[in-house]
Amino acid sequence: MAPCRARALLAYQLPLLRAAALKKGSRGQWAAKSFAHSARLASGRRQSVGGFTVNQDRLMNDLHRTCKWGTGKRWGSLDTETGMSRLSLSDSDKKARDWFVETTMALGCSVTIDEMGNVFAIRPGRNVGPPTCVGSHLDTQPSGGRYDGILGVLAGVEMLRILNERDARTHFPVGVVNWTNEEGARFPISMVSSGVWAGEVPVETAHGLREVRGGTVTMRSELERIGYLGSVPASHTSMPMAAHFELHIEQGPILENHKQKIGIVTGVQAYRWYTVQLTGRDAHTGTTPFDARADAMLAACRMIACSHDLAAKHSALASTGILTLTPGSVNTIPGQVKFSLDIRATSDATLETLEAELKAEFSRLASKDVTKGLDVSVTWQTDTISPAVDFHPSCIETVRASALSVTGDTSLFREMVSGAGHDSVYTSRHCPTSMIFVPCRNGVSHNPEEFAKAEDCATGADVLMQSVLRFDHLRSEEEV
Amino acid sequence: MAPCRARALLAYQLPLLRAAALKKGSRGQWAAKSFAHSARLASGRRQSVGGFTVNQDRLMNDLHRTCKWGTGKRWGSLDTETGMSRLSLSDSDKKARDWFVETTMALGCSVTIDEMGNVFAIRPGRNVGPPTCVGSHLDTQPSGGRYDGILGVLAGVEMLRILNERDARTHFPVGVVNWTNEEGARFPISMVSSGVWAGEVPVETAHGLREVRGGTVTMRSELERIGYLGSVPASHTSMPMAAHFELHIEQGPILENHKQKIGIVTGVQAYRWYTVQLTGRDAHTGTTPFDARADAMLAACRMIACSHDLAAKHSALASTGILTLTPGSVNTIPGQVKFSLDIRATSDATLETLEAELKAEFSRLASKDVTKGLDVSVTWQTDTISPAVDFHPSCIETVRASALSVTGDTSLFREMVSGAGHDSVYTSRHCPTSMIFVPCRNGVSHNPEEFAKAEDCATGADVLMQSVLRFDHLRSEEEV
Repeated sequence: MAPCRARALLAYQLPLLRAAALKKGSRGQWAAKSFAHSARLASGRRQSVGGFTVNQDRLMNDLHRTCKWGTGKRWGSLDTETGMSRLSLSDSDKKARDWFVETTMALGCSVTIDEMGNVFAIRPGRNVGPPTCVGSHLDTQPSGGRYDGILGVLAGVEMLRILNERDARTHFPVGVVNWTNEEGARFPISMVSSGVWAGEVPVETAHGLREVRGGTVTMRSELERIGYLGSVPASHTSMPMAAHFELHIEQGPILENHKQKIGIVTGVQAYRWYTVQLTGRDAHTGTTPFDARADAMLAACRMIACSHDLAAKHSALASTGILTLTPGSVNTIPGQVKFSLDIRATSDATLETLEAELKAEFSRLASKDVTKGLDVSVTWQTDTISPAVDFHPSCIETVRASALSVTGDTSLFREMVSGAGHDSVYTSRHCPTSMIFVPCRNGVSHNPEEFAKAEDCATGADVLMQSVLRFDHLRSEEEV
Repeated sequence: MAPCRARALLAYQLPLLRAAALKKGSRGQWAAKSFAHSARLASGRRQSVGGFTVNQDRLMNDLHRTCKWGTGKRWGSLDTETGMSRLSLSDSDKKARDWFVETTMALGCSVTIDEMGNVFAIRPGRNVGPPTCVGSHLDTQPSGGRYDGILGVLAGVEMLRILNERDARTHFPVGVVNWTNEEGARFPISMVSSGVWAGEVPVETAHGLREVRGGTVTMRSELERIGYLGSVPASHTSMPMAAHFELHIEQGPILENHKQKIGIVTGVQAYRWYTVQLTGRDAHTGTTPFDARADAMLAACRMIACSHDLAAKHSALASTGILTLTPGSVNTIPGQVKFSLDIRATSDATLETLEAELKAEFSRLASKDVTKGLDVSVTWQTDTISPAVDFHPSCIETVRASALSVTGDTSLFREMVSGAGHDSVYTSRHCPTSMIFVPCRNGVSHNPEEFAKAEDCATGADVLMQSVLRFDHLRSEEEV
């Protein structure tokens, strides 16, 4: 990690200074120009710098065409107005992967599949060296949308198409990565495969992950079944990258509320996932007075409500997305309840405090002092700890410069912190990384109605491509 | 209903007066006698009146033998220390039913199976007329025990064995009934088949009930599959009964806490079952601030906690035994939550008030005033309304007289109201009915560890048999 970051820092001292000079020295000129660009943006046309802009129609056609694999719930009358349900390593995920491999190979890439099914499509450069990559994921939530993850990969494919059309030779290789099971929706560790690549999740743990909600298959068995269990180790040493840029929908309401087009993502908030298990006693709902109950369901409800209140107190977030109970009969008080708890905050310290308070409070809520009946036992299992991440200052500046050149208007972009985890969290541990956000309607994501305007997707893809090209150029300057 | 009850009242005016006289006139004598009986009870021996007592070992052997069909979770090391999981109309329920039919036919009964799969085993009497019946059910909760329902049917079979051994001719027919799907655990209306018999549930509704938790089979398709879709209408006119007595474990802690052996059940508390459905919006847990959420799970938790608090305020009960959510992913806020709500109180008026308060309060909890985000929509579906029931005074007195003759000690029994619904609720609408409770350990029921002592089961079976014989005798007096 250290050598990689050191080299990148050297490469970016110069452009950082340039960007600062530009902002200070030519304010009036930029302001005038930006108005024109802003007008063009509104009409769906984007600023081309160096003659490289993506083909919006082709990008969106590719995106929607690949969404025929794993189409989800319909919410509108147009062909494209459905959600997605493309769980990782499912049959539909295999089809999307096959398309990705075939398409990038046809575009002249060499494709490497590692032991986690991560797919690296690399387009050679003039010089040999680790690729400057864009990456995201093709898997979705069970009731997800068409943009989360998918846009990031498809924008990478569009970048490859443009480079080929222009017959462009980059100084170094550039690549597009599809990371496996980013969502953690089917196999319950999110970003698990970039986590293995980063050396943060043991490959055995990842391979052994069982499908959520009672399935018996594992990640390894499913990788094998669909033909994506590669032989290359999933590792930043086997597959090093010079940088990782990720384009993503914001999944929140901030850009839309500010009528902005690009989020320059400076980092990712910390989050932790737990499974909380409660054990009370099955009993008849009609014959068991409150004072003779160990009602695991009631205790769980009090805990979930409490997690919300404590999180709010700390300006953090808390959510429960899964809850199962047994035995599951109208007139039997559940003796067993298990629920997921997802907490998030901008700083690790806040999350630490919140966790401690939740543990103390849940114990109190499970005790007979509160139940006024019998004790309920409570156990915690920590499933994921994702510390707060600061992205690489050089990458952030590269994205900022690209956002400025594409939108031409500083009021159309802003710095922000990602609320969600992304594969960029793990790549940032071993190579300079940052992300680019585009607005999505009402900030809705993980929902079939997730939607981003075609022109916003294309603007984001332009900023992504520009960032890669700028980074590549700066690497060449460093080499010289 | 009117003629039936009128006739029964006539029949019982005499014994009611007799019982009162006994209690008043021979108090000292009974008190002395009861001490001796109490000592016998403690040593496992029971008082025989008229030479008719059940065979405790045979009763318990039958009970445990039939529990090999649908054996549930193990909780102890003995063969009999498991729970039961015999869902209605399952393969194991079919086996238990087959045993019941074969055994009662071998004991000389005629067996009738109606269109709800209710099985009536009738032993002829000296005279023709509707049978005096004992009834309960052979189905169990998914994680239930060996006594709930099963004891009531098996005590009926033991009664038939004793009558045969003694070559006893009752004045009128006596019968044993196995009611279908009493638990409502597989098909979500409890006591549905006695409900059809009583004309309170349309047979089409009952036949069309779908298996809970996503199954596709219906009651009718399962009745057909296991060969218990009879051709006789399920109706109190097709299969009238002179009376219905039901022996059952208490399923609560009262008898045990008072060291008593028999509960004379004078009625059943009112209860209502609802399905509450919440619709919010699926959204990403990390990127959706609290003020942009419509979190159906959080709203459900607040409602369930609130239902407990409001019920406690009214000395009523509230419980949630089923909760399902979608989409069900750690990092997606659930947009849909559905949960069952079971409320109970001794009076219909209390339940009426509680329901109104719950509806008002749930609406408030779903509104953005409380969510501090978006509105969550809430809909109520009423699945069952079971009004408070008063059992028939003559049957209650018959049970009281039998309890006194069997235990010989007024301190060993008490009047009580059933907290749970039973098939006797519906039979009471069309024939004199009451119930007999025996203690169960820690009041635990709907739980694999549900347990009743063999001697307590036999004491209850004795009171049941005595009640039937007394009732039969009084019918003959009425006829004369």
